[in-house]
Amino acid sequence: MINHLAIIGVGLIGSSLSLSLKQSGYVKRVTGCGRSEDNLKKGVELGVLDDYQLNISEAIKGTDVVVVAVPLGAMSSVFQQMQSSLDESTVVTDVGSAKATVLRDAHRSLGEFFPQFVPGHPIAGSENSGVEAGVASLYQNRKIILTPEQDTSQSAVAIIDKMWRQTGAEVEMMSVEHHDRVLAATSHLPHMLAFSLVSHLSKMSDQDEIFNYAAGGFRDFTRIASSDPVMWRDICMANGDALLELIEGFKNELSEIAKAIEHKDSEALFELFRDSKHTRDQLRDL
Amino acid sequence: MINHLAIIGVGLIGSSLSLSLKQSGYVKRVTGCGRSEDNLKKGVELGVLDDYQLNISEAIKGTDVVVVAVPLGAMSSVFQQMQSSLDESTVVTDVGSAKATVLRDAHRSLGEFFPQFVPGHPIAGSENSGVEAGVASLYQNRKIILTPEQDTSQSAVAIIDKMWRQTGAEVEMMSVEHHDRVLAATSHLPHMLAFSLVSHLSKMSDQDEIFNYAAGGFRDFTRIASSDPVMWRDICMANGDALLELIEGFKNELSEIAKAIEHKDSEALFELFRDSKHTRDQLRDL
Repeated sequence: MINHLAIIGVGLIGSSLSLSLKQSGYVKRVTGCGRSEDNLKKGVELGVLDDYQLNISEAIKGTDVVVVAVPLGAMSSVFQQMQSSLDESTVVTDVGSAKATVLRDAHRSLGEFFPQFVPGHPIAGSENSGVEAGVASLYQNRKIILTPEQDTSQSAVAIIDKMWRQTGAEVEMMSVEHHDRVLAATSHLPHMLAFSLVSHLSKMSDQDEIFNYAAGGFRDFTRIASSDPVMWRDICMANGDALLELIEGFKNELSEIAKAIEHKDSEALFELFRDSKHTRDQLRDL
Repeated sequence: MINHLAIIGVGLIGSSLSLSLKQSGYVKRVTGCGRSEDNLKKGVELGVLDDYQLNISEAIKGTDVVVVAVPLGAMSSVFQQMQSSLDESTVVTDVGSAKATVLRDAHRSLGEFFPQFVPGHPIAGSENSGVEAGVASLYQNRKIILTPEQDTSQSAVAIIDKMWRQTGAEVEMMSVEHHDRVLAATSHLPHMLAFSLVSHLSKMSDQDEIFNYAAGGFRDFTRIASSDPVMWRDICMANGDALLELIEGFKNELSEIAKAIEHKDSEALFELFRDSKHTRDQLRDL
């Protein structure tokens, strides 16, 4: 049970968490904080928030848990603003999609409070963003990855672990490096491909017409290109090394296909498609 | 109204067409033909077919319309087998995803009957294949592209046009070249990207674990990698030139992103993602 929760950055992720915890009665009071007062007012209207503050140090005073759900590029500044008014008993967590830079920022800015910080990442979301996009069921049967360090407080980890389990999610522990590599492969790279594809096609001369003939497969494939550009800019900046390695590997793989097409090597194409289908089919049952 | 329809190659596309036309009472009798008798028997059991033939010239005798729904690589052989028993009054159409090679094959093999052939392509489908995957609603509000030539019979075009409209689809006319370019962009390239991505990730050392953390975005993005490998091998062979040009352009686009990540050019990344989101958001309303 959490008496008082603060959410810094009230978008899809934060509002879905709040709605879920409120629905199960696991949280008594949720205070929102963010730069847009309109957004925070909407949060109160929608029942996502009980109240709000525009000032971070005010927002976190006397809270049990603080969830930082801002884009990666804003983490450092948020931690700095928290440092002066953070209670010893308050546990802080985040929801950033890349963890190495968040940990670096937390180390630098939280100082002595660093052990109270539990780095986290819910593997959930949608191409929609904003407080209105929040849904209580977002985390059901989804995975939450926590990447605590050696000096992270075990009791702090236990509190965040329990909070996420209340939403119906499964919580797993992972090293920061492993998290950032796995996410670069399964999330960051696919987003780059979707953005690139839409960008490339939009430059073709018969643009409008091309999109007219986009069928279901294309829509599924490019849905993630509707994601928040600020969030994705920050992910690229934060997890650039892992991402660059994957982009390079992907380009080589695509070049293999191009070479097979060029040489009319139908057997090589068939084998690659057959193996990929086999791999992807297994995902259906997961 | 069609008295007797033959479907050569009874998979997702052919069986969905049959189910739809039967449901609306637009067809009296549907004869299936294909290499697997088990599949044809299943078609009869499922009510997709009224009867079947293993021999193409038997299957098309006395029919009003023949729909050729085999992979592109099998078109030429099917046309050759049809040639000897085709009636002058029978209209032939196909559903191939690339049209230049189909027209070339039809020209070569149908000879004097060529004007009775109406090249067509329903922009519909799913990653599922086979007769069991057929659904009567598959073509509702979807586009069917016909690419008739100068010497294609106008009355033959009218018959195929009317047949497809019965399924709830919208029919459009297009040149072969334009069709093949547009489809390379909106369908063939995205499939190559999905196959490449799954193939690349499956080679990474922590393969199994990587796919464990695949969230909704990844699933949407790679769903089309479950598509039929034979169909896609043949599309690559048939529409290789257009596809190679697009793969090259796409790789350049992706390299731009990689360069921006490398140079920490956050502004360039933001602009590219913002513009792509804007373009993709417009597709939601289509």
